[in-house]
Amino acid sequence: MKALLCSHGQVRLADVAKPVPGSQEALIKVTMAGICNTDLEVLSGYREFNGILGHEFVGVVESDPLGELTGKRVVGSITVFCGECWHCRRDEANLCLNRTTIGINDRDGAFAEYMALPRHNLHVVPAQLSDMEAVLIEPLAAGMRVAEQVHIRPDHTVAVLGDGKLGLLSAKVLSAGGSNVTVVGKHRDKLSLASAMGLSAALSDHFTGPADVVLDCTGSLSGLETAIKLVRSGGTIVLKTTVSGMYNIDLSEVVVREIRLVGSRCGPFASTLALMERHDLELSGMVEAVYPLDQGVEAFNHARRKGSLKILLKV
Amino acid sequence: MKALLCSHGQVRLADVAKPVPGSQEALIKVTMAGICNTDLEVLSGYREFNGILGHEFVGVVESDPLGELTGKRVVGSITVFCGECWHCRRDEANLCLNRTTIGINDRDGAFAEYMALPRHNLHVVPAQLSDMEAVLIEPLAAGMRVAEQVHIRPDHTVAVLGDGKLGLLSAKVLSAGGSNVTVVGKHRDKLSLASAMGLSAALSDHFTGPADVVLDCTGSLSGLETAIKLVRSGGTIVLKTTVSGMYNIDLSEVVVREIRLVGSRCGPFASTLALMERHDLELSGMVEAVYPLDQGVEAFNHARRKGSLKILLKV
Repeated sequence: MKALLCSHGQVRLADVAKPVPGSQEALIKVTMAGICNTDLEVLSGYREFNGILGHEFVGVVESDPLGELTGKRVVGSITVFCGECWHCRRDEANLCLNRTTIGINDRDGAFAEYMALPRHNLHVVPAQLSDMEAVLIEPLAAGMRVAEQVHIRPDHTVAVLGDGKLGLLSAKVLSAGGSNVTVVGKHRDKLSLASAMGLSAALSDHFTGPADVVLDCTGSLSGLETAIKLVRSGGTIVLKTTVSGMYNIDLSEVVVREIRLVGSRCGPFASTLALMERHDLELSGMVEAVYPLDQGVEAFNHARRKGSLKILLKV
Repeated sequence: MKALLCSHGQVRLADVAKPVPGSQEALIKVTMAGICNTDLEVLSGYREFNGILGHEFVGVVESDPLGELTGKRVVGSITVFCGECWHCRRDEANLCLNRTTIGINDRDGAFAEYMALPRHNLHVVPAQLSDMEAVLIEPLAAGMRVAEQVHIRPDHTVAVLGDGKLGLLSAKVLSAGGSNVTVVGKHRDKLSLASAMGLSAALSDHFTGPADVVLDCTGSLSGLETAIKLVRSGGTIVLKTTVSGMYNIDLSEVVVREIRLVGSRCGPFASTLALMERHDLELSGMVEAVYPLDQGVEAFNHARRKGSLKILLKV
């Protein structure tokens, strides 16, 4: 089958063997996949990964050991957990000590015609969601994770720093969940898109806070310092992106103003799909281009352009 | 009256006017006071304070506008709040936007024969507590604050990094409150003291964690990095001390392992006194020396010695 491989920091199209699913795994025919900034980081050497790239996908189950998922359209959560470690026994599969992560860490990913994944990772996509909406489930769930971790009250204000893909999608989920969210960014075109998506948006020069909750989705080392300035005393900053490099930062304000910092990783697919079923998230503006898998290298080149929105692969 | 002044970074004994209490303030005859590391930082220029030093004290009320506190032995919380700002209206007096702090920020402190303080800052000391125990209320309450902010469950392990005064006292409070606490430090004498106080103690080279909750009481820039190593995924790090200087730190583990960082400041006096009433905290080993106020400069010199325990002033 055709697949996009990461080998030694380069992405290339290759012909590889179709995966053979394990006893608890389903075989999925991938129909659409999305390029994430993490894929670009993987190519830059994050996690020293060599294999099939990609962790955002939607597909149709071709075979399921129990049969019930066969023929169903599914998305799949990206962390494959062991089910037996300290965290798994505490229902914290997200933090599994033996986890692999599709397309990132010790497990082939979704930029291919087929992939195998444990059937308990899969979630059936509601009929009214298009493939183009469903393929955005992973970054949307990452936004949903914030609402699992932080008690955002109806009287709270939430500032999402960063008007990139993760910022806009996180803002959209929290807003649909009832929170009072403002996207704070530096790019007028992105903030216009935020407005078109029904979000409140502000240029960072004009936004002074204080906000009860600040999400740092900037992907930049300066994001945390800005977040500390904008969060209220006693408020919460959510670190939503890993940033490569070292922070050089004064944290005394965190102590004196009793600020909380919360690291936040992947989120729940089931509740995010349920939210998407209840609310039209108006996501069409998020997609900048769709490439066939054959043109995957070109798709990656496009995704690398600064400020690009979501680039999808049609398989 | 006699008082220890901080003027331009120097501590000196001076004769100053006895304070005149405001309409809602009590006048307190100070009987004992404690030197805190923050007092040394104030002398080093933290907060640019000039005035009477000191925020740890016990005394007897000489006059109270409502009369009921007159003659009572009291301690006093160090933050004087406005009662009207955004935080005060939300019962977050600790974070008052217009706060002054005795002996630290815009308000004279306790190293004097008398001090004036709003009566609602005062708490009557239970009869069975000695002055020497009561004067430790402020750092003990700072430890109690952790239990207000973080839900420490009975099955959780707590590691207190730092075997200095704040570490030992915080560990003692959390331990008395029922938590499973280990003091992790570098000084065999301090760890012996911890054991003598009934605490579990470990040399940092021998302690590998993971702990559910880690308190950073090291006062050092390296404390946070150690805390990140020792906390479990999904666990909580409490930043208990302001550290002067800039952290140079990689926070990607905080995101990937979903760690929480909680800034923690002053704590509640009432509940801490109640805890001290219920439990003998065995604090006598914490006091290294008692000086008369007249020898305050010598007391400060003693307190500056690296690794010194609590130095008290008898007024």
